Amino acid sequence: MDYQTELNKDIKMRTARLQETVRCLGADACILSTSVNVFYTTGIIYAGYFYLPAEGEALHFVKRPSDVWLPNTVFIRKPEQIAEELQNRGLPLPTKVLLEADALSYNSCNRLIGALNIKETVDASPLLRKQRSVKTDLEISQVRICAERHMAVYGLIPSLYRHGMTDVALQAEIEREMLLHGSSGLFRTYGENMDVYQGSLLAGENAEEPSPFDFALGGKGVSPSLPIGACGAVIGKGQTIMVDLAGNYTPWMTDLSRVYSVGKTSDLALKAHQASIEIHNIARDTARVGTPCADLYNMAVDVTKKHGLEPYFMGTKQQAKFVGHGVGIEINEVPVLMPRSKDLLEENIVFALEPKYVIPGVGPVGIENTYLVTAGGIENLTPIEENIIEL
Amino acid sequence: MDYQTELNKDIKMRTARLQETVRCLGADACILSTSVNVFYTTGIIYAGYFYLPAEGEALHFVKRPSDVWLPNTVFIRKPEQIAEELQNRGLPLPTKVLLEADALSYNSCNRLIGALNIKETVDASPLLRKQRSVKTDLEISQVRICAERHMAVYGLIPSLYRHGMTDVALQAEIEREMLLHGSSGLFRTYGENMDVYQGSLLAGENAEEPSPFDFALGGKGVSPSLPIGACGAVIGKGQTIMVDLAGNYTPWMTDLSRVYSVGKTSDLALKAHQASIEIHNIARDTARVGTPCADLYNMAVDVTKKHGLEPYFMGTKQQAKFVGHGVGIEINEVPVLMPRSKDLLEENIVFALEPKYVIPGVGPVGIENTYLVTAGGIENLTPIEENIIEL
Repeated sequence: MDYQTELNKDIKMRTARLQETVRCLGADACILSTSVNVFYTTGIIYAGYFYLPAEGEALHFVKRPSDVWLPNTVFIRKPEQIAEELQNRGLPLPTKVLLEADALSYNSCNRLIGALNIKETVDASPLLRKQRSVKTDLEISQVRICAERHMAVYGLIPSLYRHGMTDVALQAEIEREMLLHGSSGLFRTYGENMDVYQGSLLAGENAEEPSPFDFALGGKGVSPSLPIGACGAVIGKGQTIMVDLAGNYTPWMTDLSRVYSVGKTSDLALKAHQASIEIHNIARDTARVGTPCADLYNMAVDVTKKHGLEPYFMGTKQQAKFVGHGVGIEINEVPVLMPRSKDLLEENIVFALEPKYVIPGVGPVGIENTYLVTAGGIENLTPIEENIIEL
Repeated sequence: MDYQTELNKDIKMRTARLQETVRCLGADACILSTSVNVFYTTGIIYAGYFYLPAEGEALHFVKRPSDVWLPNTVFIRKPEQIAEELQNRGLPLPTKVLLEADALSYNSCNRLIGALNIKETVDASPLLRKQRSVKTDLEISQVRICAERHMAVYGLIPSLYRHGMTDVALQAEIEREMLLHGSSGLFRTYGENMDVYQGSLLAGENAEEPSPFDFALGGKGVSPSLPIGACGAVIGKGQTIMVDLAGNYTPWMTDLSRVYSVGKTSDLALKAHQASIEIHNIARDTARVGTPCADLYNMAVDVTKKHGLEPYFMGTKQQAKFVGHGVGIEINEVPVLMPRSKDLLEENIVFALEPKYVIPGVGPVGIENTYLVTAGGIENLTPIEENIIEL
């Protein structure tokens, strides 16, 4: 079966599942307009509104591009035309509607509410995130292709490094290879102010810098308007370099971090790195369908405590409060592996596990892999060398 | 005066001006939380809320990073703590508040409204965009630095090209140079679903592809989840290549497009390119403080019609309805040079003019420069070779 045929089948399945949610909630329709959810429900991206009634076929209200060929496409300039078109088709205006209240602007939501005279809204954002967390066969095959390319690029990193390089210069070489391997360039993230582009490369003391963004680690960045990641410093002897650059080679992404060191690094760094591998090994041995995500977080904390590594866990001056997250069309999907999570692992969830440590004066250590939850446990989709690679 | 001293002076000025707007509107406070506006009003980026009362000093309610050193910084976990802190300080809760309704999510706005018991909101987004459009001396000096680096990278393009390259491969080489020249990597844009990262490189027939995004031109992209820009096709003989990659070398950006051709290109392409240069020349001769932005658009259309180039103007299958825009912390600031604009050019506005044409089977032509409106007219901040450069 070719990609387009399989995609059409997938889209039908995804739409049917979403429609079931609409009906379960006693709503009349779901309207989506973020790039991520339009792509998820249609297979393409358009500016406009994906309109899914509780029963019947989806309508595509499209502003741009001019060449959308989906069935039931209606070209519009403004959301008020949705109401007109529904009336033209003899369809009722929806009263209770699922809207992306977590992602769409206050003005955009209010404009839709006014244009369609909506009486009650339900937040579609977490419902879509939940649905997207369990991947279809097609999505999993896309994740696998992405993982292959992601690993291939990381395999080149030792050959791209030259002594005396800055962190930015190394990142420039890796990003060049990423683009040549089919990277889309964009790291889609969920949440307001999650500014990042191709992921991050952190070396030495820069790894300690707190960042305004809710990623696992920070970094100073090269501009006060984007304080995250590489900062332009020369990478010194004994320092570690963590590469956590985007696996955006297909629309379904992978997340992968590996660590390199300039010559031999410190014993503490090596010890902390081994603790991260130990956490991954325990997860690979114990995680299965039904495992609480909170358990994985707590296990990571236990291993960290056993080795006395708490001061370095997930940062020093600022410590992230999660050790992993779902991965898909957005890099930070649900479930989140955090202490208060109520989520359980489900079959076909794809998630990243990233227990990391920052060693002052040395740099970041620890690994990140992307895993698929299978009927039998979890499968590592990114199986490449896990030890620190000396450059 | 060093950057930080000048920045502090600038921030005071920007804040005072915004406070005047708050008072003029009879509001009690303005709350900002997008990266762009927090950066504009504080000089740094934090996750949290910039709280500016109608009178008195700004308060910074910060979630992350942990090391914010601004005066009046209060670390919080949730917006409800803003109300508590105001009460602790004996300050009244605001009744009428400016909120970023165009950029902040429906949920985030409603949460703020609930947390502070706000009775009336005013959309802060267009007010901030208007204020940001007129640049301060510091901002202009940042734009000038950015322009220098932007031009330096474009100067390298002929040396980066190799015959038989794909558009993506050429973009990879240019992006590598961008990062080495201090590019932040992120192209901040305004508006929902304006997905792009380092700008775009368009060659040959790909320039005709309509895109869902509201940029001047489209392109198929390399992924269905990011349908814009280069598509991986080999650049053929006689085709044109338009480079419109990000001028993000300081927080205040520049916009610059130049065209290259593989060998000699078609007469029609050369003619259309000259029309674009003619439009720039007329703008340079006639635009001044007080010129209506709509006049610049209409002038571009008139020149286009004079040369019979309407079918190619701003795209073929889908034609953008503007020929320029303000440039600053975001690449698409106000004013927009479009037919229905009511804006006039003001002193110290920085804007990009980009009359472009797409020639079927050949590629895109036309140039884009960034201009500063001065007391005497407009100054071209990006004065490099404007003719098509043969590769």
